[in-house]
Amino acid sequence: MKKVNIILVGFGRVGKAFFQVVHEKTAFCQERYGLDLRLYSICEIDGALFSPDPLDASHILERFPSLSLMRENPYWKEGLHLRDLLSSIEPGVLVECTPSNIRSGEPGLNHLRQALDGGWHVVTASTGPLVVDFRGLREKAKEHGVKLKFSGATAAALPALDMALYSLAGAEVYRIEGILNGTTNYILTRMKEGMDYKQALEEAQSKGIAEPDPSLDVEGWDTASKILLITNAALDADFTLDDIKVEGITAIPTYLLVQGKEEGKALKLLGRFSKEEKTPLEVSLKVIERSHPLYGVNGADKGITFTTDTMHSVTVTGGKSDPRGAGAALLKDIINIYRKNL
Amino acid sequence: MKKVNIILVGFGRVGKAFFQVVHEKTAFCQERYGLDLRLYSICEIDGALFSPDPLDASHILERFPSLSLMRENPYWKEGLHLRDLLSSIEPGVLVECTPSNIRSGEPGLNHLRQALDGGWHVVTASTGPLVVDFRGLREKAKEHGVKLKFSGATAAALPALDMALYSLAGAEVYRIEGILNGTTNYILTRMKEGMDYKQALEEAQSKGIAEPDPSLDVEGWDTASKILLITNAALDADFTLDDIKVEGITAIPTYLLVQGKEEGKALKLLGRFSKEEKTPLEVSLKVIERSHPLYGVNGADKGITFTTDTMHSVTVTGGKSDPRGAGAALLKDIINIYRKNL
Repeated sequence: MKKVNIILVGFGRVGKAFFQVVHEKTAFCQERYGLDLRLYSICEIDGALFSPDPLDASHILERFPSLSLMRENPYWKEGLHLRDLLSSIEPGVLVECTPSNIRSGEPGLNHLRQALDGGWHVVTASTGPLVVDFRGLREKAKEHGVKLKFSGATAAALPALDMALYSLAGAEVYRIEGILNGTTNYILTRMKEGMDYKQALEEAQSKGIAEPDPSLDVEGWDTASKILLITNAALDADFTLDDIKVEGITAIPTYLLVQGKEEGKALKLLGRFSKEEKTPLEVSLKVIERSHPLYGVNGADKGITFTTDTMHSVTVTGGKSDPRGAGAALLKDIINIYRKNL
Repeated sequence: MKKVNIILVGFGRVGKAFFQVVHEKTAFCQERYGLDLRLYSICEIDGALFSPDPLDASHILERFPSLSLMRENPYWKEGLHLRDLLSSIEPGVLVECTPSNIRSGEPGLNHLRQALDGGWHVVTASTGPLVVDFRGLREKAKEHGVKLKFSGATAAALPALDMALYSLAGAEVYRIEGILNGTTNYILTRMKEGMDYKQALEEAQSKGIAEPDPSLDVEGWDTASKILLITNAALDADFTLDDIKVEGITAIPTYLLVQGKEEGKALKLLGRFSKEEKTPLEVSLKVIERSHPLYGVNGADKGITFTTDTMHSVTVTGGKSDPRGAGAALLKDIINIYRKNL
């Protein structure tokens, strides 16, 4: 049985979902993959929960379900920093779940650098650090002989990145087209059904699909960050956010709205890479036909199509598009770092 | 640069496509993955092409493009057997592309056992050996510390197996539904468009989609073999062909034909696994609605949907469904055995 030491940073919606999934799947991972998941610490900005033995998840979930309550846990150490944790536990995986800033990459970028330097593998749901310094982080991981995985940062449980890196190995990717943001796709789907933008956004917010401040989503930047990461990974490339022409859904031209409502057509916000174009990366509104492989991707669902030389076109759709899906994607990445039986 | 020694067994349509793909991708694999692919031998039932240096693919493809011509190659050794080759080259990967028999597993089963026993990794496009002795081959691979990969045996370039084993790691698979055979899906698609069964089959044969003897396809056994392998891999299970209720498309009930032609519906031959059913595995004709994730999978295309606990439902469709697609899938498996940069 391989021991897998884990530090979780960030206990928001995704961090908590990951904690819950690890708790549910501990026995399954032992049996199926021979991996003993040992979560030693939940680290926050002002301190950390840390015990010398792996945390008792059922106890924590029952007694200290929220971050504020967690601070009342006797194992809560005010002011304990990630840096100290990284050096006091035998290296395993750092799981990064803090809210990410796509311009500074912080606070995640700093966490990731510390972890990689300390010989820890990294699995991240935060997009920011990778958007800001993809190349640097990859090189740091390589230098220290550890892995940097980020399925949870690209599309939660939709295996966009597995497709790009693993399933299309050996093929050259010419084009990528993805519906990568649940909020915008939900709004566009409801607008096709007759709602106006404001109604649809409010509904998405009331259902917990859209954030209270939805600007990163509806202005296209979340999609831009994801298509950037997927493209850089698929092509081993170095594009930055500045290379992307970004359009959102806040001011949809009337002719697109009308066309998108026609029978057999749909208006979608697509993140796109195309090798042949002068501006190879863009996020833009497109009216797609029924024959398009992403036509049926509705509501908060996501999907992505890769077009390649030797394998032609492959599309993957679905995958739980919520914190639990992201938590499951983080666990998947951990398993795939360590497993021997593949 | 990691040297990857390769022996190819079988030089039919898939074997030749693999050879061609390796030839095209040699430089790409060096650069992207640090892997130096060295194909030393093409082995057939009555002898083998073998040179002390890796084969010069462009020379062979130009001068000896068919199996009969290959026998005129000065490096052709009449009567040279796989067993001798396996022991005379430093172990790498055996690529198995012989036509497979799903009842005996031969001749591939014997090849695979010899290779694994000799410490060679195995990548196979032949379904038969795995259908007959999945558990035994997996254990043999484990015993010798080598890998057994079979993307090419399940759905050519459609990454059904990657999905099951890699992208859904940590999730429990409850249901699988797949359109896994290009010939039957092509025929059903054309029948929806108005052709009768015989016309559609003849057209598929004239286009090289259907084999001259299409019985394994149209009677459902190819689909059965594939859903069997995918299910056994996804669940680490031990089902056999005898556990599957198999239906083909040779005698479609009239009511299904009529329903399948209705607007917004389609008749498909599905390979299915369902944990809850008394007979968990079956191959059967189903009328599916437009909302079904495989509704848009037409012609010779394939697709598969996995339903899980933590990641919900994930669907993958497309992928080149021909010998070149299978060749690319074989190469992908080789890369994923050796690569370090994932």
